[in-house]
Amino acid sequence: MPDPGQREVLMREEASRQVGGAVRLTAAERRLDAHLHWLKKKEMAAAQFPPAMHFFKARALIQRSPIFKLLQKMPKGGVLHIHTSSLVSVDWLVKNVTYRPHCYICITWDNSVRFLFSSRQPFPRWDCLHWQLLGALRAKLGDPSDFDDGLIRNLTLFTEEPDVAYPSQDVVWEKFEKAFMVAAGLIAHAPVLKDYFYKGLEELHNDNIMYLELRSGVSRTYELDGTIHDKVFTLNMFQQVTRQFVRDHPDFLGARIIMAAHRALTLSDITSAVKEAIQMQRDFPDLVVGFDLVGREDGEKNIWYFKDALSLPAQIGVRLPYFFHAGETDDEGTEVDGNILDALLFNTTRIGHGFAMAHHPLAKEIARKNNVVLELCPISNQVLKLVSDLRNHPAAVLMSEGHPLVISSDDPSLFGSTGLSYDFYQAFVGIGGLKANLGTLKELAINSIRYSSLPSHLKESGLLVWQNKWNAFISSYSGQPHHKGTPTLS
Amino acid sequence: MPDPGQREVLMREEASRQVGGAVRLTAAERRLDAHLHWLKKKEMAAAQFPPAMHFFKARALIQRSPIFKLLQKMPKGGVLHIHTSSLVSVDWLVKNVTYRPHCYICITWDNSVRFLFSSRQPFPRWDCLHWQLLGALRAKLGDPSDFDDGLIRNLTLFTEEPDVAYPSQDVVWEKFEKAFMVAAGLIAHAPVLKDYFYKGLEELHNDNIMYLELRSGVSRTYELDGTIHDKVFTLNMFQQVTRQFVRDHPDFLGARIIMAAHRALTLSDITSAVKEAIQMQRDFPDLVVGFDLVGREDGEKNIWYFKDALSLPAQIGVRLPYFFHAGETDDEGTEVDGNILDALLFNTTRIGHGFAMAHHPLAKEIARKNNVVLELCPISNQVLKLVSDLRNHPAAVLMSEGHPLVISSDDPSLFGSTGLSYDFYQAFVGIGGLKANLGTLKELAINSIRYSSLPSHLKESGLLVWQNKWNAFISSYSGQPHHKGTPTLS
Repeated sequence: MPDPGQREVLMREEASRQVGGAVRLTAAERRLDAHLHWLKKKEMAAAQFPPAMHFFKARALIQRSPIFKLLQKMPKGGVLHIHTSSLVSVDWLVKNVTYRPHCYICITWDNSVRFLFSSRQPFPRWDCLHWQLLGALRAKLGDPSDFDDGLIRNLTLFTEEPDVAYPSQDVVWEKFEKAFMVAAGLIAHAPVLKDYFYKGLEELHNDNIMYLELRSGVSRTYELDGTIHDKVFTLNMFQQVTRQFVRDHPDFLGARIIMAAHRALTLSDITSAVKEAIQMQRDFPDLVVGFDLVGREDGEKNIWYFKDALSLPAQIGVRLPYFFHAGETDDEGTEVDGNILDALLFNTTRIGHGFAMAHHPLAKEIARKNNVVLELCPISNQVLKLVSDLRNHPAAVLMSEGHPLVISSDDPSLFGSTGLSYDFYQAFVGIGGLKANLGTLKELAINSIRYSSLPSHLKESGLLVWQNKWNAFISSYSGQPHHKGTPTLS
Repeated sequence: MPDPGQREVLMREEASRQVGGAVRLTAAERRLDAHLHWLKKKEMAAAQFPPAMHFFKARALIQRSPIFKLLQKMPKGGVLHIHTSSLVSVDWLVKNVTYRPHCYICITWDNSVRFLFSSRQPFPRWDCLHWQLLGALRAKLGDPSDFDDGLIRNLTLFTEEPDVAYPSQDVVWEKFEKAFMVAAGLIAHAPVLKDYFYKGLEELHNDNIMYLELRSGVSRTYELDGTIHDKVFTLNMFQQVTRQFVRDHPDFLGARIIMAAHRALTLSDITSAVKEAIQMQRDFPDLVVGFDLVGREDGEKNIWYFKDALSLPAQIGVRLPYFFHAGETDDEGTEVDGNILDALLFNTTRIGHGFAMAHHPLAKEIARKNNVVLELCPISNQVLKLVSDLRNHPAAVLMSEGHPLVISSDDPSLFGSTGLSYDFYQAFVGIGGLKANLGTLKELAINSIRYSSLPSHLKESGLLVWQNKWNAFISSYSGQPHHKGTPTLS
C-alpha cells in the first residue's frame, strides 16, 4: 500500500503550490477557513451551484450566499481592471442622472437611445433626428417605472434569458459596445462625470475596496451650453474628485488612470494616443500610470499590428508602462491568442484577462519570471461567452499553480454586478473549488496592492492599512462559532 | 521594438512543446498539414462551430466536415478506453439482434425495457412481470419503425434536445447507467456476444483502428435454455473471436481486456474482483492486461477507500497493472478530484479521463516522470456534462504542454458516435484549436500503440504496420492539390 504519510506529504505539497498555498494562517484565520470550507461544501452540494450557472441567473442565489456576504465584508485591496464607462451602477445613472434638468433623449433607428444635456433644444445628429426633453416625456407617461426599466436595459447586458438574448460572442459584443455608447451621453456631461467618479469610488469603498486603477479613454466632457473640455480638464477633475474622496474616507488609498485607446483605431491614431499618454504621464505623474488597447481583441489588429506605435516610447527613451488586454479568447492558435506572447514581448506590466494564458506554457514562464500579474475577470468572461461553467475557467489551472493573479470586475455595471465581491465569489467558489482557501483570498487581496502601479512606499503603507482592516475583519468573526455543526454566520 | 526574429523563436519554442510539437513532418505531410490548417480556419470562422455545440447537435455538421472525412481515413492506431457494453452501434443491436428468434421484451415500471433470449416463456422477475415475444409484438404493430426507434432511444443517450433532457450530471448519469442495463439482456446472450465482439472489431477496423483494449466486467453469458456460462467462457470466446478477426483482417493487431469492477460494490467485493483479475491474468496472459474500477466516481468510494483491496497484488508479490478512471469531475478539491493523485500512488499504468489533471501540477509532473498516459475522451466528457464548449476542455492545457495523451471514445454507441474519428475531430479541432497540427495527430496515433499493453516486440511490429498505413494515407493525398486556393479534398 502507498504510505499514508507519504500520500499526506504529496497532497500538502500540491496544495502548497496554489495561489495562497504558502500563506501561513493564524489560529483565528484557520477557524474562519474551516468554516468557509464547510460553507463551500454545502453550496457545492446544493441543487443549483451558482458558478455553474449564467451570472444573470445566479446573481440572486449569490446574494443569499453566506460566503458572498463574508466576501463583501472582507477587505479586498484594490481593483486594477475596470473601465470608466461601467464604474457606477446603472440604477444610479437612470434614477439620479436622467432625472436631472436639461436631459434630452432620442431614440435611434436601431431602437437604442442617446442622451444629451443641453440648455437648448439640441440639433439633430446623424443618429438622432428627434431629441425630447426627458422630464417632459416622463410627465406624459404617468408612471415612468416601465420606461426607466427600458433605459436600464439599454445600459446593461442584464436579461432574464441570457442564452436566448445572446446566442453568440458576436451578438453579446454588439450589445456590449452599444451600451457604452448609450452611457456616453450621460457620463461625458462635465457635472455628471464629477458626481459619477465620486459615486464610483463610493461603491467600491462600500464593497471594502481601498484603491482603484481605471482603464479610461479619458473622454472629453461637455457643458450645457455646448462647451467642450479637453482631456486635461477630465484628468484634473478626476484628480480633484479622488483627493476629495480620500479626504472624506481616509482609509482609501487613491485612484489612478491607465490611458486606453480603442484597437479599432488606425495605426496612426494609436501612435497619437501613445504620444498623448506619454505627455499625460509627464503632466500627471501621480495619476496617469500607463497605456492599454481596449475593445474586443481582433485578429487583424493584434498587438503586433501596432508594433510601430508601441515601440515609440522605448525609441525616444521614455518608459510608458503597458497594461495590455491580451488573449481574451477561447480560440487557440489564432492571432488574438498570440497577443499573450506579444504583450509580454512589449514588457507589459500586467495582462488584462489572459483567458488563453493557461494554454501558453512558455508565456506562463515568462510572466512568472517577469512578475507579470494576470487580471482575472470571471464574470466578464462568462457574460461575454468565453466559458459557461466557471469551474472550467482556464484560470483554475493558473490558481492551482500559484500563477500571479488579481481578481477584477472589468465592467461591473454592464454585467449587473458591483464592486469585487461577486467576482471574488466566482473565483473562490467556482474557479478555485474546494481547494481555494482563506490563504488564497488573502494572497489575492495582497496581490492587488503588490501588483498595483503605486510607488513602493505607498504600497508599503497601503499594505499596512490593508493588514489592519484584515485583522479587524478576522476578529469580527473570531467571537462567533466556526465549528462544523453550527453554521450561524450569515 | 521586440526583435521579430526573437519573437519567431519564442513562438516556435512554444509550439514545439505541444503534443506532436517535436514531430518532424515530411514535405508531403507539410502540404497536407497546410491544407488541414486552412480547413480548420474555415470551420472556426463558420456560424456554427461543432466543438462549441453539444455533440448531439454537432454530429450532422461533423459528418459533413472535410476534416472529419480525412480523420476517418487516417490510421489512428489503437483505442485504449472503451467499455464492452457500448462497443457496437445501437442500430445493429436493434435492427439485427432484436430481430433474432426467441427474443423477449418487457416494459419495466419506470418505462424502460429489458430483453431476454429464451427457448420458452421467461419467468417473471422483480423488475419484469410480463415478457412478450418481440417477433409476435412486432407482427401486431404493422410498421415497427417507431417502435424500433423507441428501442434505440432506450439504448443510447442520444436526443435532439440534450440540454432539456439532461439538465444535470445526476440526470444524465442515471440515464447512462440505465442504458447499460437495457443492453445487458441482449449482449449477455452467448451467441449474440460472439457476433457482438466481431461486429465491434469490424466497426473499429472500418474507422481505421488497428487495436483495442476493452474495459470489461466480463459478464457471464446465458444460452436459450437458461444455461449460464462463467467468465472463463466469455474470455475464451473473446479470444477466439479476436483470433478469427485477425485471420480475416491481417492488418489488425488484436484486442485485450482490462478487467473492470463497478465502484458501487463493497470493499470485499472489490477484493474478490482483484483476486479474480489476478487469476484471469495468469490464465489468459495474452488477453487480460489489468484492472480498473468503473462507474461514476464517487466521493465516498474513492480509490483510497479501496486501498486494502488494491494493495493485495503487491502484498502477494504479483504485478496487476491498474488502468484507473480518475478525476472525471469538474469539482476541484473534492475526494473524486483526489483520485488523480491516488491513482498515481497505486502506480496506475494509464489514467482514464483525468478531466481534473490540468488542475494538479504535482500529479502532472509525476505522470510525466512515470510515463503515465491520459486517456482523453472528449465527447464523453461533454455528454456527461463536465464541459459544454470543448474549447474549454482542460486537456487544452495538457495538449499545449505535450502531456502524454491518447484519444479514446469511452462509450461510443451510447453517445451516438462510432470508432475514434469523432473524438479525434473534437480533440484536433476543438481542444487543440488552430495550434494542433498533423504532427499532433501523428503523435496521438503513435501514442495509442506506444502506451498500449502490448509487449514491446508487438509494439514495434505494430508501429511498423501503422507506419506503412500512415505512409499510404499521406500518399493518397499527395497527388491532390493542397494549396490554399483550392480546397478540393472532401
